[in-house]
Amino acid sequence: MMSDFAENPPAMLGEFDFIRTYLDRKTAADGLILGIGDDAAVIRPRAGHDLCFSSDMLLAGRHFFCDTAPEDLAHKIVAVNASDMAAMGAQPRWVLLSAALPELEENWLRRFCGSLFARLDHYGAVLVGGDTTRGNLVFNLTIVGEVPSGQGLRRSSAQVGDDIWVSGRIGSAAAALQHLSGRLTLPESLLEPCLDALLRPEARIALGRALLPVAHAAQDVSDGLAQDMRHILDASAVGAEINVCAIPNILAALPDEQRLPLVLCGGDDYELLFTAAPQRRGEVCAAAGTAATPVRRIGRITDTGYLKLTDSQGCELRYDTRGYDHFA
Amino acid sequence: MMSDFAENPPAMLGEFDFIRTYLDRKTAADGLILGIGDDAAVIRPRAGHDLCFSSDMLLAGRHFFCDTAPEDLAHKIVAVNASDMAAMGAQPRWVLLSAALPELEENWLRRFCGSLFARLDHYGAVLVGGDTTRGNLVFNLTIVGEVPSGQGLRRSSAQVGDDIWVSGRIGSAAAALQHLSGRLTLPESLLEPCLDALLRPEARIALGRALLPVAHAAQDVSDGLAQDMRHILDASAVGAEINVCAIPNILAALPDEQRLPLVLCGGDDYELLFTAAPQRRGEVCAAAGTAATPVRRIGRITDTGYLKLTDSQGCELRYDTRGYDHFA
Repeated sequence: MMSDFAENPPAMLGEFDFIRTYLDRKTAADGLILGIGDDAAVIRPRAGHDLCFSSDMLLAGRHFFCDTAPEDLAHKIVAVNASDMAAMGAQPRWVLLSAALPELEENWLRRFCGSLFARLDHYGAVLVGGDTTRGNLVFNLTIVGEVPSGQGLRRSSAQVGDDIWVSGRIGSAAAALQHLSGRLTLPESLLEPCLDALLRPEARIALGRALLPVAHAAQDVSDGLAQDMRHILDASAVGAEINVCAIPNILAALPDEQRLPLVLCGGDDYELLFTAAPQRRGEVCAAAGTAATPVRRIGRITDTGYLKLTDSQGCELRYDTRGYDHFA
Repeated sequence: MMSDFAENPPAMLGEFDFIRTYLDRKTAADGLILGIGDDAAVIRPRAGHDLCFSSDMLLAGRHFFCDTAPEDLAHKIVAVNASDMAAMGAQPRWVLLSAALPELEENWLRRFCGSLFARLDHYGAVLVGGDTTRGNLVFNLTIVGEVPSGQGLRRSSAQVGDDIWVSGRIGSAAAALQHLSGRLTLPESLLEPCLDALLRPEARIALGRALLPVAHAAQDVSDGLAQDMRHILDASAVGAEINVCAIPNILAALPDEQRLPLVLCGGDDYELLFTAAPQRRGEVCAAAGTAATPVRRIGRITDTGYLKLTDSQGCELRYDTRGYDHFA
């Protein structure tokens, strides 16, 4: 840990008290040799497994609204990172959380940490370290997951002729965000499920793991389905044809010109986008059943090198589907 | 990765171009199965080794001055994290860097990344992932190191009768910081070495590794020597007596009332503080020789449960040595 050098106003709760009281649960977990409280955590990897590492930084006002309930904030931080593990077919194991917090307000912290640990438990992961400092609200979570050696799902393994599948419902989180930003008014019936998708997404861990022996390529849908699809195409040097009408969503009540951008470019879905050979449709459906997660076939991998979007009649849709670029 | 939802002004360089151009060096490294460019990096742990995880968040204006040269910034970010590995006796292997950047200014990025990769190479570590987003300058680095199974150096292993040792020189970085903040005027001769200690610290990786078979407890000096010593005492349930005059420093030109707080509470040193049995002084010195790192014996572990500071005559010094608390 590094010392701050800015002057700090007095606060009720000290850094070490905070860590001791709220973060260090003295968890005993399989493979965890040394948890919070030393210079580093120590884990003992299991033989026959690779480790997957991913890290996400979330800034107040950019990745979440400043007034987000602390429970929802913790829920989402964990889900965003767990989703990267799901996309690899990995089981989340260990997590390091860095947090810059404007102050150590005990009620807020209690609620945040309660939700944090509940979600980590939910995914089977353990907090093993991190950092706390004073500053404008920023979180960085690093997650480490385990996957049987050599079996991790990659973006680069899509094969021409593969089916393209997606889990869950796409576009709901983006719809809620547009609604909250005043750029769209959602009908009453859609508001709650869309807000739920935005604030409390569920990483598809069980599905990712069940797909390990079945899927070719996979990634999670975080920056918009079309852009994330292109990541698979680029990595695999293939093309794709997607039937836009097949993309599962709950936004049928919205007109096309509102629904399509949400479904194709919305982002924040944390669903799995994956490919598998057409001969394995039964196994894909069985994996989805095992994981109790709906999946839908939305297209196929082609040799064209580009992403073709079609309507229900199979006609090509011309549509700007550039996804999200944090700096564009 | 999670999509931003704030509006972004246009920039010259896109996020994916940035990652492709500056961060993804397509490194082939032992044990690295999959590097930058997928949902997660994949590594294959070596048999017979534990993995150490540590994460540090650095905020502009808090942990570094906003006008710090990009080369120095990258240098320090890596050193701060590598130092946690040194304190475990671990060899740094893999790093994930998250960065919030106000803009993608190519010259700044080129200088920052040049230094970042040079320092990672220096420590034998490889960048395998992370996150980039737009925002006020924040960095979070997660580092993963390797240590022979069960041998990682802990804070909790100090034994009554142990010698207490420290590497390098203490207080220089804090002296430079005080100088830059206008709270102290350093003599010309001290300015350069102190600034060097503040801006370009060196993590004591080789020393940490050489101490694995010799040292009992260890930690790095980051929050001030006295406070960091207390962490060892608390974790090991022991006390200590430290001869303040033995603490190695280059600040002899400063009066006691300026030098002592810098040496005892300054922080930002990234030296190793460790304990070893008195019978092993020769081996400690041999380890220091192997690592080409000076070490000095500054005291001993006692059964008192508290930290006693003495002067050159062995008289107890009464001195407020509360160290740095990010929220105090």
